Parts: sequence; C-alpha cells; structure tokens
Amino acid sequence: MPRASIVAVGTELLFGQIVNTNAPYISEQLQLLGISVLYHFTVGDNPKRLKETLIRAADESDIIITTGGLGPTQDDLTKELIAEICAKELVRDEEALRRLDAVFLSIGRKNYTENNLKQALLPVGAEIFYNEVGTAPGFALENDGKTFIALPGPPSEMKEMLRRSVIPYFSKQSDAVIYSKMLRFYGIGESALETMLLPIIDGQTDPTVAPYAKEGECAVRISSMRKTVNEAEKAVAETVRKARELAGEYLYSEEDKELHQVVVELLAEKKLKLAAAESCTGGLFAGEITSVPDSSEIFERGFVTYSSESKIELLGVSSETIDKYGAVSEPCVREMAFGALANSKADIAIAVTGIAGPRGGLSDKPVGTAFFAVASRDGKCITKGKFFRDRGRRINRQVFVLEMCDMVRLFISPEAL
Amino acid sequence: MPRASIVAVGTELLFGQIVNTNAPYISEQLQLLGISVLYHFTVGDNPKRLKETLIRAADESDIIITTGGLGPTQDDLTKELIAEICAKELVRDEEALRRLDAVFLSIGRKNYTENNLKQALLPVGAEIFYNEVGTAPGFALENDGKTFIALPGPPSEMKEMLRRSVIPYFSKQSDAVIYSKMLRFYGIGESALETMLLPIIDGQTDPTVAPYAKEGECAVRISSMRKTVNEAEKAVAETVRKARELAGEYLYSEEDKELHQVVVELLAEKKLKLAAAESCTGGLFAGEITSVPDSSEIFERGFVTYSSESKIELLGVSSETIDKYGAVSEPCVREMAFGALANSKADIAIAVTGIAGPRGGLSDKPVGTAFFAVASRDGKCITKGKFFRDRGRRINRQVFVLEMCDMVRLFISPEAL
Repeated sequence: MPRASIVAVGTELLFGQIVNTNAPYISEQLQLLGISVLYHFTVGDNPKRLKETLIRAADESDIIITTGGLGPTQDDLTKELIAEICAKELVRDEEALRRLDAVFLSIGRKNYTENNLKQALLPVGAEIFYNEVGTAPGFALENDGKTFIALPGPPSEMKEMLRRSVIPYFSKQSDAVIYSKMLRFYGIGESALETMLLPIIDGQTDPTVAPYAKEGECAVRISSMRKTVNEAEKAVAETVRKARELAGEYLYSEEDKELHQVVVELLAEKKLKLAAAESCTGGLFAGEITSVPDSSEIFERGFVTYSSESKIELLGVSSETIDKYGAVSEPCVREMAFGALANSKADIAIAVTGIAGPRGGLSDKPVGTAFFAVASRDGKCITKGKFFRDRGRRINRQVFVLEMCDMVRLFISPEAL
Repeated sequence: MPRASIVAVGTELLFGQIVNTNAPYISEQLQLLGISVLYHFTVGDNPKRLKETLIRAADESDIIITTGGLGPTQDDLTKELIAEICAKELVRDEEALRRLDAVFLSIGRKNYTENNLKQALLPVGAEIFYNEVGTAPGFALENDGKTFIALPGPPSEMKEMLRRSVIPYFSKQSDAVIYSKMLRFYGIGESALETMLLPIIDGQTDPTVAPYAKEGECAVRISSMRKTVNEAEKAVAETVRKARELAGEYLYSEEDKELHQVVVELLAEKKLKLAAAESCTGGLFAGEITSVPDSSEIFERGFVTYSSESKIELLGVSSETIDKYGAVSEPCVREMAFGALANSKADIAIAVTGIAGPRGGLSDKPVGTAFFAVASRDGKCITKGKFFRDRGRRINRQVFVLEMCDMVRLFISPEAL
C-alpha cells in the first residue's frame, strides 16, 4: 500500500486564521484510492523550513501532496522548492500561459505582470494539472521513486483539481479501480449500527465497510477495489443490499445525501407541500429545508411560534391545552400540527415543541426533551415524545431538526420501513 | 520570541474523519502570548512515528504542544513517549486518582479497570493540568530547555485546559502580560476597513492591530504586551477608542460577539419584542436569533412566508402589490414588516424577500438581490434594497441574515451611528 504525506503551506495556517480542511479531505480521498496517509504537516512560507519539511515528507513516504504556495507572489515557493529537490528546471508551459491570457482578457486586463507569468513556469517532466477554478496550475512530478503532487491552497480549486486530475492520475497508474458508496443512517448509534452490520464487517476484506459517527446520525462507507469499475460496482451493490437487509429501517440515503435533502426530494417526488410549526427549534427546521435549491416547490410556509400566545393565535392551539399539559406536551404539539394545516395550503405539517436549554428544564421534562407531530389533511397524525441526551443548546436543536426530518420522511414513505 | 510546534496525535485525523481545529485554535492563543508557531504536525497512534515527530518538533522549537493520545487505551501513547524522551518515570498522581474516583462514583461505577488507572500516571516533575471537562489530565514538562505541553484531544477539554492552566502557565513564566480585544464590524470589506484604520495600523508596534476577514463581515484584533495587565488594558482601550473614532459606524461589538447575539442583547436591554417575516431566508434568521439562550424573552414569533399565498394570508400583503411589483420588491417587503406587526404582539418587525439562487434570478434582480424592511408600531419603517455579490445559495442566505440583524441593531439603537 503506497504511503503519503500531506504538506499544507501557508503562514496564515500557523496564525490560526484558517483551519486546514484540505488535509482531511485529501486524506479521505486517498484512503479510497488505497493510499494510506502517515503525516500531515503545516509549514509557513519560509523557504528553509518548507524545503526541510518536503525532504522529510519524501523520506517518510512515497507520495508527497502539497497544498498552497503556488500563487504569483514572492512568498509562493512550493513549486520552486519541489523543482529544486528534484533537480528539475522550471520552464514556461504554453498551455498554462494561454489560460492565463484568457483569464486576464476576461477580466479586462491586457497585461499581466512578471509575477503572474511565474504561474506559467512549471518543472520539466511534470504532468501539469490545469486549474479550472482559479489561475495557479498544479502538477505531479516523479523523481527517484517519489511522487510530488502540488495542489493550490483554496479548497474549491484543490477539490476540483483532485477530482479532475489527481484521482485519474493515480487510477491510471494502478491496475485496480476503487468504487465506493456512502450510506447514511438515522435513529441508531454508531456502535449499535456496527453490531447490526457485523455480518458484513467481520472478516470482510473487499468490499470494506467503515462506519463513521456524525452529529446525531451515522454513516457507513462501503468500498471495493477491483480490476474493473463494473466488478467494483457489483461488489459494492451486493454489500449495500446486505446492509439494507440488516439495518434498512435506519437507512435514509445510499447516495450520501443529507436527511433534509432526502425529505425535500421525497416531497417533490410525491408532489406534496409541507408546512412547519416550530417552537424550540425557532425556524431552524424551515431554514434547513429551504437551504435546498428549489425547496419553494415543496415548502409552503412556516410558523415560528416561540411564545404561547403565538401558538394560540397563529395555530389555534387551545389555551386550555397549554394550561393543562404545558406548551411542551403531546397534546400541544398535536394541535400545533393540525393548526399548521388549518392555517396553510400544505398537505403535510410537522410540529415541534421542546426544551433546548440551557435553562427551562423540568424534573419530568429535562433539557433535551421534545414532542413532535406530523399530520396530513386526512386526519392522520403521528406524535412522538423523546428525550435526547442534553448536548448543549446548539446540538440539541440540530438533533430535534433531524428527528423532524426523519418523521416527515417516514410519514410520507412508510414503505421505507 | 519563543517558538512552538503543535503535534496532533490520532489515526482518525489521518483518515480525514476529523478536522484538526485544535491546531489553529492553539496557534491563535499562542500568538496572543507572544509565542510564534512554526509547524503543525499530525501523526497517528504509531509509537515510532509519534516519537520521531516529537523529537523533530523539539529539535525545531522551544515549546512542543501535543493534543490527543492521553486516554486510557493501549493506543494512547503521548504521555509515555514524552516521558521516555525526557527520561522521566511515570508515577501515580494522587489528586488525579482522587478525581478519577469521583468521576467513576458519579456515574455509579465503583471499580475502574487497570486501563483507567493509566490516566492517573504522570511524569515525575511535571506540572499537572487537571481536566475539568473530561478525565485525562494534561501536563507541562520541562526538559533540556524545551517545554512539552500535553493536552487532551477533544476540543472542549483542550480549550478549557488551555484557558485555565496553559495560558497562566506561560504568563507566570513571562515578565510581560498580553491583553487583547476582538472588534467586529459589519457593512465594510476587509481592505476598506484596513484603509480606514491605517492611522492605528501603520507604524504601530504595540498595541498591534490585525484585521481578519470573516464571511460577510470583518474582525480586528487589538493586542498589547506590557509589564502589567493594567497597562496592557489601558493601551488596548486607547486604541479601541481610536478605532471607534475611525470606523465606529461599522463597529458592532467590542467583545467579539456575533451580530445576532448583539441584537438579542440590545432587544433584551430595551425590553423590545421582535417578530420576523422571512421569504428567501426561510426561517434562518429566526433560527439564528433563537440560537441564543433565553431569546424567548425577545423573539415573539416568526413567519416563514415562502409562497406568495402565505405572504397574503399570514401577513396581509396585498395581491395587487405582488402582481404589480413582484414578491421581491420594496413595496412587498414593507407590507410584510407591517403585516408581521399586525399579526403579532411584537414591538419591532423585520422582513426580507429576495433571491438566494441558484435559480430565480431576473435581469434587473439577479441572484443575490434582497429587499429588507424594519418597522415599529409607531409607523416608522426603514427599507433597503441591496444587491450582494452572488456567492452561492448558502452564503447568500447567511449574508441576508447578517443584513437583517444589522438593520434591527441600527433601528433600535440609532445612537450607534
């Protein structure tokens, strides 16, 4: 298994102004290519320290991937130092120059400076990766059994170059291809899911089945490395089928989609309109649903009924219900859901009332408690009271929103169960 | 200036499952202590590679800060390897043991395993940092002119230990203290702000004035290193006063608070209740405001009026207005704000209608366009139509929410201007 190190270059990273999200992203992609990652390094725009780090990374690994330091300024040294280490000259690349011309033309500047031209200089013998998002090209340079891969620092440029150039570069060197799928689960913890999936985890070498814990939910990556894409796809599909058999009631996406995205797509597919009545989540559910482009097709309206009065006035919740059971109660949330239907044009309404904290907890309803209701115009209504472990206001609210999404999902596609 | 390296320990970091947010956080704090950071390293739970990395970090710097690898399992090796490098034995720390006892008692388990006891073993001569959030203690160990600082990996534990133990540890070694303030600005770009603040940036060595760009807003850190806290505080206060003079109209917090937090506090202070009518932000504004604990005191209700019908029915927007000017228009948003007041008990209402994208842009109202209105019961209303550069749906919506917050802020405290 080839071994890689990732070197992030940039003094701003050492100041702590920027979080290095490139290294984990690249690491995950390399895993999928069957390349293991031994080290991440971060170093500033200092030639001596950068060169030493590159040399050390090359000592320790077969593949050295750098991010950053490819720009036009004097500070940008990654390319120059890699060329120096590999004893290669930098020469002008005509295609890189042509692309630089096109960019400068498009922004109405005719002349670039000497600095900009620096971006078109690339090491002799390198395979050039042209930048489809920004201006600095990247490259792969093989030397003495080591492969240096230089990528730009901005994550959008790096990701596009990784996808378009680096992954194909490694794939064509290998006689195997990797195919993988990310499955997402809600309503079950990581270790319980692992136990359920044991028959496909234990003793398996290909496809591999790797669970990941996410905030309030779980994901499982199923990957296969075979001679052809077709074979790998078939192997993954077979394992996905088994995962569905073993834990299908918790599986909400086989395409690595977010739960709210899945809900929006299901509603669109069934041509249903949704309304929401939110107390403790304060609009967060509506905010998540409407984060999906074209959600206006399926989201009709939302009521953020934070005060008891607003529950009574906007949703028609009876004051007796609130007096008798409290605003955080099953009878109240049921009335909220039906009230949202009565006061909207939606087909389905979801409601929540709960205690997000840090204050407001009661002995029988501690922080983390919430009641949910989902209802439709035919009078069908499913309610749920649930106590989640208190993980602080922010996460409590996120978990409530996930539960709301899942209730809508199961309500409109009971066949999922 | 002392030089530090930060070593993050944990194989999960190399898998890319977790982003290393500890290194930038610690880097920023070290800067404030006058310590410069040369390297970040990330290495897995591999004894050979971890030891080599620690030795290299010690070769390169005066201070080596580790995060992670302090837990109870066999994989956790950071402490053992630091002790080995410094040739110190590990001995049982009675206070650490007592604390471990207390934790196990509190969760109803009487006996801990041999593994757990491992956490109470600490290097001879180390200054112990007890963990107020989790169970693994950290420590500082000086050896041969180098200082090793071992911190736990979970960010909440690391941050608390840094604040409570590490910063005082360095402060007491130094004959200078650092004091700093983070100022936050809205409505101005980073370079324009830098130009405005030039008189306090140029040629200044103490206090230092460092601008940071954030999504849709800017921040400026003002820091001073003096003999006493009092002196440093006075120097910072004087520079803050100058910053206020130079760019006060954009300054919304001198305490590094988020804009929505400032709005919640201002409303609470003035005992005003807010309602929101949101179209394109789809509940995100309400969601942000209610993310602040006790915002129920100031947030009365919210209307997520995504459809035109909901604007008409819930807010009383006239269908003529929508027909004539469109739903994304100044007349519509004005009616939305007054409609939110008429249909709530709030004192102030804020409304937004706009185009978040990616679709729905018009030639005269491209994606990124939004109209805002803020109104009060005395009939006062301020409206604004604004075209923001299209930065994708997610950021467009965030920027709209920031603008809403700022309009409420300026509406209720015009003295801020």
